[in-house]
Amino acid sequence: MPESDEFYMRHALKEAHKAYLDGEVPIGALVVMQDKIIARTHNQVERLSDSTAHAEIIALTSAYNFLGAKYLPEATLYVTIEPCLMCAGAMYWGKISRIVYAADDEKNGYRKYLNPGFKNPFHPKTEIVSGICKDECAALIKQFFKARR
Amino acid sequence: MPESDEFYMRHALKEAHKAYLDGEVPIGALVVMQDKIIARTHNQVERLSDSTAHAEIIALTSAYNFLGAKYLPEATLYVTIEPCLMCAGAMYWGKISRIVYAADDEKNGYRKYLNPGFKNPFHPKTEIVSGICKDECAALIKQFFKARR
Repeated sequence: MPESDEFYMRHALKEAHKAYLDGEVPIGALVVMQDKIIARTHNQVERLSDSTAHAEIIALTSAYNFLGAKYLPEATLYVTIEPCLMCAGAMYWGKISRIVYAADDEKNGYRKYLNPGFKNPFHPKTEIVSGICKDECAALIKQFFKARR
Repeated sequence: MPESDEFYMRHALKEAHKAYLDGEVPIGALVVMQDKIIARTHNQVERLSDSTAHAEIIALTSAYNFLGAKYLPEATLYVTIEPCLMCAGAMYWGKISRIVYAADDEKNGYRKYLNPGFKNPFHPKTEIVSGICKDECAALIKQFFKARR
């Protein structure tokens, strides 16, 4: 029996906790294909000194490397917060099948930038699910920024 | 005397030609800081089997690595075609000072996706220039897709 979205989101949240301990904005991401985790990672902007090193971008690149393919039409990407415009664009190019994110991001989430004439910036067949484990994922981010103030 | 935008765009176009010869969608990009090219590269989606490997993303990551910094507030990014949503988002995070692109991209350019309420998806201080060498840059892309049909 396939595992649930919550099962995978809890793994992504574990990755977010690792980011937290490293002093990174605590966001984790997984790529899952045929009920297997083929990429699991977290935000590494500080470690790599690279503002493109978001959890989703690293997870996508890891999945491409693992598969030797540049598209992921049968995969699900799990991420603990709503993707930003850059990451949403990356998922569009990857033709990813499903995107599951936990908490909304009012400040940097992709949705606020979009032309209301577009349903979403993804591939037309991409399914989007949100809200899974959102309270825990949002609480971790809040705790991170509170501690740094 | 600082070199002109056209001077740098011609270097970016040289990179696009390299991409063309490699069978990649021919797009080139540079990062210039204090009148020096600190990153020069081209689209490598096919070579790396990675649909995030756009010229701009590789150029940004190269520049971050070169500087050991995760922001580019004093740099200009040159690219031979209008950035997509992913690359526009990456430039937002990089706080890049100027973006100079050549040809518009009606299909995948960032502008068509944007909520008209937003001037652009970049950092508020980012200056955007377009149209430099646009005919040559657009012609190269057209030639590429025509040859593959």
